[in-house]
Amino acid sequence: MVESLTARAEAARDAASGSREAAISGRRGGRAARQALRAAEPAVDDRPVRPGLVGGRYRALDPPQIEAINEAVLEVLETIGLADPIPSCVAAVTAKGGVMGDDGRLRFPRALIEETLAVAARGFTLHGQAPERDMQPHDGRVYFGTAGAAVHVVDPETGVYRNSEVRDLYDAARLVDRLDHIHFFQRPLVCRDLPDPREMDFNTCYAAVSGTTKHVGSSWVLPEHVEESLAMLHRIAGGEEAWRARPFVSMSNCFVVPPMKFAEDACRCLEAAVAGGMPVLLLAAGQAGATSPAALAGAVVQETAEVLAGLAYVNALKPGHPAIFGTWPFVSDLRTGAMSGGSGEQALLMSACAQMAQFYGLTGGVCAGMSDSKLPDAQAGAEKGLNYALVGHSGANLVYEAAGMHASLLGFSLESLVLDNDALGAVNRTIRGIECDADSLSVETIRDVCLNGPGHYLGHAQTLARMQKDYVYPLIGDRTSPKEWVEQGSTDALTRARRKTAEILGGYYPTHIEPAVDAEIRRDFPVRLPEAATRAGG
Amino acid sequence: MVESLTARAEAARDAASGSREAAISGRRGGRAARQALRAAEPAVDDRPVRPGLVGGRYRALDPPQIEAINEAVLEVLETIGLADPIPSCVAAVTAKGGVMGDDGRLRFPRALIEETLAVAARGFTLHGQAPERDMQPHDGRVYFGTAGAAVHVVDPETGVYRNSEVRDLYDAARLVDRLDHIHFFQRPLVCRDLPDPREMDFNTCYAAVSGTTKHVGSSWVLPEHVEESLAMLHRIAGGEEAWRARPFVSMSNCFVVPPMKFAEDACRCLEAAVAGGMPVLLLAAGQAGATSPAALAGAVVQETAEVLAGLAYVNALKPGHPAIFGTWPFVSDLRTGAMSGGSGEQALLMSACAQMAQFYGLTGGVCAGMSDSKLPDAQAGAEKGLNYALVGHSGANLVYEAAGMHASLLGFSLESLVLDNDALGAVNRTIRGIECDADSLSVETIRDVCLNGPGHYLGHAQTLARMQKDYVYPLIGDRTSPKEWVEQGSTDALTRARRKTAEILGGYYPTHIEPAVDAEIRRDFPVRLPEAATRAGG
Repeated sequence: MVESLTARAEAARDAASGSREAAISGRRGGRAARQALRAAEPAVDDRPVRPGLVGGRYRALDPPQIEAINEAVLEVLETIGLADPIPSCVAAVTAKGGVMGDDGRLRFPRALIEETLAVAARGFTLHGQAPERDMQPHDGRVYFGTAGAAVHVVDPETGVYRNSEVRDLYDAARLVDRLDHIHFFQRPLVCRDLPDPREMDFNTCYAAVSGTTKHVGSSWVLPEHVEESLAMLHRIAGGEEAWRARPFVSMSNCFVVPPMKFAEDACRCLEAAVAGGMPVLLLAAGQAGATSPAALAGAVVQETAEVLAGLAYVNALKPGHPAIFGTWPFVSDLRTGAMSGGSGEQALLMSACAQMAQFYGLTGGVCAGMSDSKLPDAQAGAEKGLNYALVGHSGANLVYEAAGMHASLLGFSLESLVLDNDALGAVNRTIRGIECDADSLSVETIRDVCLNGPGHYLGHAQTLARMQKDYVYPLIGDRTSPKEWVEQGSTDALTRARRKTAEILGGYYPTHIEPAVDAEIRRDFPVRLPEAATRAGG
Repeated sequence: MVESLTARAEAARDAASGSREAAISGRRGGRAARQALRAAEPAVDDRPVRPGLVGGRYRALDPPQIEAINEAVLEVLETIGLADPIPSCVAAVTAKGGVMGDDGRLRFPRALIEETLAVAARGFTLHGQAPERDMQPHDGRVYFGTAGAAVHVVDPETGVYRNSEVRDLYDAARLVDRLDHIHFFQRPLVCRDLPDPREMDFNTCYAAVSGTTKHVGSSWVLPEHVEESLAMLHRIAGGEEAWRARPFVSMSNCFVVPPMKFAEDACRCLEAAVAGGMPVLLLAAGQAGATSPAALAGAVVQETAEVLAGLAYVNALKPGHPAIFGTWPFVSDLRTGAMSGGSGEQALLMSACAQMAQFYGLTGGVCAGMSDSKLPDAQAGAEKGLNYALVGHSGANLVYEAAGMHASLLGFSLESLVLDNDALGAVNRTIRGIECDADSLSVETIRDVCLNGPGHYLGHAQTLARMQKDYVYPLIGDRTSPKEWVEQGSTDALTRARRKTAEILGGYYPTHIEPAVDAEIRRDFPVRLPEAATRAGG
């Protein structure tokens, strides 16, 4: 029995690889085989997955639940409002119908929200430095990227958590630049080697745009810092006009301190972004059970209300300014009060928020993949897989924090970018879904194989045609047999990720910013990323 | 900036744990606090998750796609049919309208399938030895369990793949008996220490039913073996009548060799199960690109056709015999022909098949969690998380192979049962979904906290009430801060899983089969599980 099972499995495997080789090479000869393989390589639009596949096949909320949440949101905005608005916010919002109360709270009547939704930007592009990396985060299209404010980088081999630095940020950017399934790069970590806030803000933006041509998100603590970065971005773009035509950096902005209070400095930065033509990610990041309600629906209500308030504010400043609906309700482990970013509750909250953005017809940005685990281990993988799947399929347009994050956002791992890229590739394949045209349904293929053919599909023309177009292959994921795996050194995923990370980082130094422009930037701005870090051997 | 970030995080954490303690203990005193905590412990029906939550919020297929697949299925059954039916199958099926062709293929006209669906069992129970473990796998309810025919057990610490044995099977069963989120136990591994097929079949069933009171699935290679196991099961049940009233073991039956051929011995076993009152899992396990079409839709068509043929066969033998619609389309990595059970394509195939079972109104059983990785590492976690999420949310009634599997089903790990249990708990939480009643929407809670309260939700009555009812806590999942994690030994998930596995296995020896009955079984049947293995210190 065992023998027959094992023998059958091995025979099937031999037959599989043998027949395929026969089909591709043996029967046609080596050159023809190579030609056949090349012919099977898909054109760009024929790849098995690509950025911006259309999600929406998972629905955490039913339509009546969405309506109920919307009603609660409007009531919260109209009757509770937000505390601590800065004077310019009060001026802009009350001019549009907002009501400043004697209790210091700015309230948003239903009509103001309706007017906001009537003028808010929809269907906008998020640009890359390279136009082929532009994103269209709307109409159900889903993009995955990094984000976060990790204060540690973890060495997964030793388990040591050390302070994160600007070189790590640059390395993360150039790694993401080479990983197909991470579609944008928002800064995932804090440059703790730069204690001066101005230098930190500037270099965070500089390291990111130097490392990748994908769309970048960054963050600033003071409006002057925003202006300094904008001056640098104008240089890279080739002038302010060129920047404003294709702004390739967006601002991640925590304009609100949940529950329901404006954050003064962040609001001032927000106004600088609006003035500077920079898209904004309006972030409300309450933590359920701590800074937002423990009831999941309540957490969705509060975060949605807060972001709608921010949207009203932005559109009061400048109607139609591109703003991402950034509802980020986090989860608390209520036993300790600690954040739990990898939980099932987290997947539900983010998926529900993605649906709320769709309900309003806005570009939604939520999070998935914020593992609680300190290391890229089985726990981290499972938390990420679950959260990617549900949040991705909910049709969130931009999925942040989706690569590299550990320790409920306190830790970051370069190796996890490589690991997570594989997982995101698989998730993207599921978002693409199943085609059911006549060829895919395969009735004639089944008939051919069963009635005329060899009784298997291994060398069939359909199989060869589908091999590259329908199937995603992992970069480091292992699919060998136990025997082959032992022969190849019995590696775990982390070991393979370390090798791939070293291979990419050792050989890839982006050069999309012209050396002359970069030299000028280094001359005129407080660049703290060592030039040596941007060259081989650095 | 860094200081303020870190300080803020730490302050939030201190506030969280401090306020919660204050709310629970400080303000009320120790005894009152303990009472409050006890009061917050949920009743059984108030647990955050339970077996059989209703899925269906993820839809891999649209209704027109389902219709197109169904039409293709009916055409395949009517015009291609299955080869190699045994005479009793031909007799039973042709009596109901099947057509035996001169080419040796048994064809299933549309009317026969319609009649089959009219009489097929629906809404049946799958029993446990303990009634509280009965499952109702229908009407969208989702249960997760083990299954498989691994030939190796992996020691995740050393990476050594050794032959699997009957003691491993017993250990797996008693571990599953104690893990809340694994709802049934189908044999996941082959007892390779028992080379005699009769002994293997008997002891596989015996070890499983001895180790757990959850519903068991097992497999047999010859009908005489089925009968011997039934005689043993009658003893445990307290007679044949009691067994037939509550059959707590189902047969996993590969009655088909894809593409579209009956398997002789398996069909004979199937008939023995039907005669013996044992529910059957009708399994068709083609591998896309090898034994079923590479086009995903085609793989679904073929497996659905094969299982419908099996269902027609079972219902021709005995109308209404409980049968599980076991479409298991596996994935090939077409570069090598090897199976890839952890891929995104795999999640799509199984989710689509779950929908086909729903379309026919039948109890559907598919697979999720068959990692390609050889070890419980980040790759394994991500593959499992993705597959659990989509297949679970597709509303599959029974999700097999969902715990412990590695190496695309060739390897099994006891530690992975513990790891996967945590992941399945989280997935189950997402299947439960989000309640949107008035209390959950939390408008008054938000008002209370913002306008009257302390500005956070940490000690709020709603938070305390929701803590146990709404949130799932992992058994070994780590949610500590990096600092606490280092203090606690910087463990990875696997290390914690090893400890928990040893703790459970060292202290839990099920006694649900009465010692006198077990002694009789050991006297009258070829039991090969050492008695010492069933006692502490054994």
